[in-house]
Amino acid sequence: MELTKNSKILIVGLGFIGGSYAMSLSKKGYYIGSISKNKKDISYALENHLIESGTTRVSKKYVSQFDIIIFCLYPKVFLDWISKYHRYIKDNAIVTDVCGVKEEIVYKAEKILLPRLNYVSSHPMAGKEVYGVKNADNSVLKNANFIITPTSKSNKDAVDIISNLASEIGFGKISCLSVRKHDEMIAFLSQLTHCIAISLMTCKKSHKLKDYTGDSFRDLTRIANINEKMWSELFIMNKSFLVNEIDIFTSELIKLKETILNEDISQMQNMMK
Amino acid sequence: MELTKNSKILIVGLGFIGGSYAMSLSKKGYYIGSISKNKKDISYALENHLIESGTTRVSKKYVSQFDIIIFCLYPKVFLDWISKYHRYIKDNAIVTDVCGVKEEIVYKAEKILLPRLNYVSSHPMAGKEVYGVKNADNSVLKNANFIITPTSKSNKDAVDIISNLASEIGFGKISCLSVRKHDEMIAFLSQLTHCIAISLMTCKKSHKLKDYTGDSFRDLTRIANINEKMWSELFIMNKSFLVNEIDIFTSELIKLKETILNEDISQMQNMMK
Repeated sequence: MELTKNSKILIVGLGFIGGSYAMSLSKKGYYIGSISKNKKDISYALENHLIESGTTRVSKKYVSQFDIIIFCLYPKVFLDWISKYHRYIKDNAIVTDVCGVKEEIVYKAEKILLPRLNYVSSHPMAGKEVYGVKNADNSVLKNANFIITPTSKSNKDAVDIISNLASEIGFGKISCLSVRKHDEMIAFLSQLTHCIAISLMTCKKSHKLKDYTGDSFRDLTRIANINEKMWSELFIMNKSFLVNEIDIFTSELIKLKETILNEDISQMQNMMK
Repeated sequence: MELTKNSKILIVGLGFIGGSYAMSLSKKGYYIGSISKNKKDISYALENHLIESGTTRVSKKYVSQFDIIIFCLYPKVFLDWISKYHRYIKDNAIVTDVCGVKEEIVYKAEKILLPRLNYVSSHPMAGKEVYGVKNADNSVLKNANFIITPTSKSNKDAVDIISNLASEIGFGKISCLSVRKHDEMIAFLSQLTHCIAISLMTCKKSHKLKDYTGDSFRDLTRIANINEKMWSELFIMNKSFLVNEIDIFTSELIKLKETILNEDISQMQNMMK
């Protein structure tokens, strides 16, 4: 079991991430196939040489030819898909996903997929405030962080292959984290920042703001422009970690506020350092 | 009274902003002089053609030759400076500053400077997480927003000159706001975002975070890397507006947290839109 230029790779779900993965891997010379529900996305990806074959129909004939399958779907759609079609996947294939939360996904997916298949979950720490395969842009993945979340059931060779695949796609630092540690980390690093950006946006709806903003505000609010369907799903799936991080953050902000109210410069500067 | 290529411009305080202003204006062919407390900064600016003359000594002979004086100093240092030396400035000169808060500065400065001089306060909405004239970079100012805060005492021609000067420096959208409106706006747009970034940083001090971060977190925390001396001064000077904005933001964040806890997807998605 290894990743070679003959490995046939299937990308299920042609959105921004699926399309960007396809772009990177096609450029590297891999055979990339795709299944996506939208015919236009398949046509676009074929015309632009992101994929070599693609279909909207899930069939055993098509699915069974692939050695590696990457699911670039919303978390729940991913679980539904494998529940329905996992029998079409060939024995010993490598399977991964890109879901932003893991505890609610990985153990359920393992129950469905293992032991006939080699499932190893992973999370690309990259994105852009645009959607769809037409915006696919593999430069966003270049040197981005990539997290693999193996469990006690993960095959070590499969973990290596996912790691190699991430390198081929262009990711920079590739790390392994436990499922639990991943979700805790992500609650802080990604979900909390998105919650902050959303809350900032709901604070004020003045249209003239843009005439006065500096970089810091633009950076913060750019990330508020998110896909509400996916993120609400992710927030709820990681609810306990996320709520805890919001509580910790809120108490730090209130602490900072107190130093301002009390004009306690030395404590304020301590927090800033 | 107008801005011409013969106008001699003095920049007091050669930090990042002072140096970047000097860079823009020198490139445009203006005669730029400078007073700064650090001899090395003056030498650097002379060697790199940011200024044509400069000194660490404040003298009537030097100061009185300038038509326009831009103070790029910390707020309190600015007030101290003009209290001590305003008599050296020639009659009818145009005077401005770059302070990040206005209510605590403008009325005091007007008392010291008017009516012999034309003082109009302004605020460049641009910055970078670096300090000192050696990092001067006028590209940061290009197309950035610029706010002028005239009062009932401001001379209209002087306001126009500051506006023209901002154009010459390279600013994009140039707006006028009242002193009060400026401080309220800045509390939300700039100070609150910095408070958020600081609080995020004090939440967790894990050194390995950088292996897992995505863009959103990097954007947020980059701005936490601030000059604690200046920002603590700004926060305290704008305390009432800032504390109010922190309270509004905190209550929005708690509202979002409640939707996550209650898995109230429709309300959560409403907030995201």
